[in-house]
Amino acid sequence: MNERMNEEMNERILTLVEEKKFGVLKEELIEIMAVDIAEIFDDLDKKQSVIVFRLLTKDQAADVFSYLSSEQRRAIVEAIHETQLNEILEELFFDDKIDFLEEMPANVVKRILKSSTEEERKLINQFLKYPEDSAGSLMTIEYIDLRKEMSVKEALAYIKANGVDKETIYICYVLDEKRKLEGLVSLRKLVLLDEKLLISDIMTEEFIATHTLDDQEEIAALFKKYDLLTLPVVDREERLVGIITIDDIMDVVDRENTEDFQKMAAMEPSEEEYLESNAFALARRRIPWLMLLMVSATFTEGIIGRFENVLQAVAILAASIPMLMDTAGNAGSQSSTLIIRGMALGEIELKDYIKVFWSEFKVSIIVGVALGFINFIRMMIFVRAGLGFAITVSVTLVVTIMMAKMVGGTLPILAKKLKLDPAIMAGPMITTIVDALALIVYFNIASTLLGL
Amino acid sequence: MNERMNEEMNERILTLVEEKKFGVLKEELIEIMAVDIAEIFDDLDKKQSVIVFRLLTKDQAADVFSYLSSEQRRAIVEAIHETQLNEILEELFFDDKIDFLEEMPANVVKRILKSSTEEERKLINQFLKYPEDSAGSLMTIEYIDLRKEMSVKEALAYIKANGVDKETIYICYVLDEKRKLEGLVSLRKLVLLDEKLLISDIMTEEFIATHTLDDQEEIAALFKKYDLLTLPVVDREERLVGIITIDDIMDVVDRENTEDFQKMAAMEPSEEEYLESNAFALARRRIPWLMLLMVSATFTEGIIGRFENVLQAVAILAASIPMLMDTAGNAGSQSSTLIIRGMALGEIELKDYIKVFWSEFKVSIIVGVALGFINFIRMMIFVRAGLGFAITVSVTLVVTIMMAKMVGGTLPILAKKLKLDPAIMAGPMITTIVDALALIVYFNIASTLLGL
Repeated sequence: MNERMNEEMNERILTLVEEKKFGVLKEELIEIMAVDIAEIFDDLDKKQSVIVFRLLTKDQAADVFSYLSSEQRRAIVEAIHETQLNEILEELFFDDKIDFLEEMPANVVKRILKSSTEEERKLINQFLKYPEDSAGSLMTIEYIDLRKEMSVKEALAYIKANGVDKETIYICYVLDEKRKLEGLVSLRKLVLLDEKLLISDIMTEEFIATHTLDDQEEIAALFKKYDLLTLPVVDREERLVGIITIDDIMDVVDRENTEDFQKMAAMEPSEEEYLESNAFALARRRIPWLMLLMVSATFTEGIIGRFENVLQAVAILAASIPMLMDTAGNAGSQSSTLIIRGMALGEIELKDYIKVFWSEFKVSIIVGVALGFINFIRMMIFVRAGLGFAITVSVTLVVTIMMAKMVGGTLPILAKKLKLDPAIMAGPMITTIVDALALIVYFNIASTLLGL
Repeated sequence: MNERMNEEMNERILTLVEEKKFGVLKEELIEIMAVDIAEIFDDLDKKQSVIVFRLLTKDQAADVFSYLSSEQRRAIVEAIHETQLNEILEELFFDDKIDFLEEMPANVVKRILKSSTEEERKLINQFLKYPEDSAGSLMTIEYIDLRKEMSVKEALAYIKANGVDKETIYICYVLDEKRKLEGLVSLRKLVLLDEKLLISDIMTEEFIATHTLDDQEEIAALFKKYDLLTLPVVDREERLVGIITIDDIMDVVDRENTEDFQKMAAMEPSEEEYLESNAFALARRRIPWLMLLMVSATFTEGIIGRFENVLQAVAILAASIPMLMDTAGNAGSQSSTLIIRGMALGEIELKDYIKVFWSEFKVSIIVGVALGFINFIRMMIFVRAGLGFAITVSVTLVVTIMMAKMVGGTLPILAKKLKLDPAIMAGPMITTIVDALALIVYFNIASTLLGL
């Protein structure tokens, strides 16, 4: 199965929907994986979605449902009977159920809570309260719990009896009578080792755990560092309250990276998909930073204003301002991007401040001199500029590239030191700061060299 | 175990190394996870690394070795005996072994190949030939292969006998006598279902597979979409040649994102860690794009040169050039970043071109008008500019923001259409293009409105 085959299948299904051949369609859908069916829904309108959804088998319906977008789910919830909705919800893993409830309107949530048992209602309410980016909001409660007195054989029998509706059985959790987490046992060990051994003999007591309120970015880092498939979540008394599985962490990694990309491009981050956002929502996330950066640019106006007499004397000086500013901005962005990314991956830490500064200093000399030299040649040959003008611009270029790289390399670290997100010290912010510096250097060098 | 505890442990170990208390150190190391020991090596010098490495147990040594950086591995390979090296290599999974061989100098590789069996030597040579970003370079060969005639009970017995040195046993592969992949069986099913069932009854025949030369980015997308733990790799005859496990995919996701961040900041991407790169290597990756963008800026010089008379008449016009250019550049980067990211995650496709264009058009009107209005107020009140000048700048702002967003939103899609990486159409490139447009608009509006 590859992308092309997927597209062909999509088209075949769409044709069947349009030709209303629902009998054939039902047969075909049985052969298709849930996530691929969910993808077909992207090309269906609301009415068609409901029709196709009704053609799914019970098991498929819940699976497909868990892959649909929030908008699509709403359309389906509105159209299906309460009994069918309850059947679907029963099939969902607890973390998917909570995600679903979080995005539904209050009346739907109420209806669902009403038809839940007292115990489940309490649990749902507790889970709905975990902050959005916390371990609590990622975890699920379908795990295998073992006792350390069990033998491997007993444990396997217990798993066989209780494993069907667990999200994973590959890592099992050994709890004491107060549900305190004592150790982990992998199914790998249970299957490979002698069945007469006791769980207490084979369980790992040195394990990684996280707390309900820990941040998802830190949790993703743990998964990467320790090559985890699941991570137990414990409360303050070290009692197991849930587990996080790697499939959810893959999504976290994507979301965290998207957030960084957006912040680094001077936007308020959002988890909504681009094509699903309306124009006002998109604009609202872009205006604040643009505004702030625009107002900051008032400084550059002031600087040019102060050197108006220089410009009046040699108006052509203005011609190189865009090139100088762009190059300085780009040079600074390169440095800040590398440092921000290095910090996000844990490769660069606060204590590396001096190392980064020194490294950027060396790099900036090499880059600055190389570009200054090329620019001098360029201006003499292609622009046919005067020698004084060419030297002014080239020297400014060397100095501003050096400044830009020092600023770009160190501001993200400073931001982190001040407990700000380093990602805000990316291209746009660095460019605004570096532009002002570049102009000051430019006019000062021009005044001196050209004797203005 | 959290980060703070890790740091405390690191310090304790470092103290033991410095005080040369090797007996105690050896005891302490037994309790520490391999990846955490590897982290301690970052703070050790070459000589200390070798000492600590010699204190590890046989099993630990191989594990720790697989987590070390390429530089650290070399130091250790130079210092340890051939027999110990061979022991370590035997313990490594095949994919880690290949990674290791790839980074070692030719004489070390030769030595290792010499002491391998004929069969293994052939296999190693074959694996070393797979391109860097391909499925072949990610896969390992330690998997469980089953026959469809086996019963569940026989399969479990087979796994018990052969599973110890497999990278994973959670997904098993059903092969025919020609090693053609016929289906998958999860250990979950084997443990949960009746042991009298046959593998052919329970195996999944609808599975996702990849080919040895497929690109790692596409493979990562498959893991995300289908929530996979492992992915089989087959050759052209559909024979199983290896498997890819999710821990390696987590690294791929990080690497691919880093590559995008670097490209979007106008750098040649590199996998080397910042702090491990020397200044020349860092500079070499930054100069080409800076140079290209600098030379492109020659256009802006030409534009300003053409309007020299306008500038001569009203030199203060130059004062707003930086603000206009920065705002246009930022507005364009916002759009291009969203689109590039959306395409990287598969949320936006080529066929969405019109949708994106229309969406950016609407957003750009909202953002443009909002910023133009604020700028007008700002210039009238704080800059005390003349009405004509304030109107000129504000109108230019609206027009350039609109252009910037259309350009930023559509060029990444166009790049993809032309089979280029959309990531090159990010901030720096968009800024350079949009700057030229902004200047043309500015001077034309100024000439008209101010009657120059």
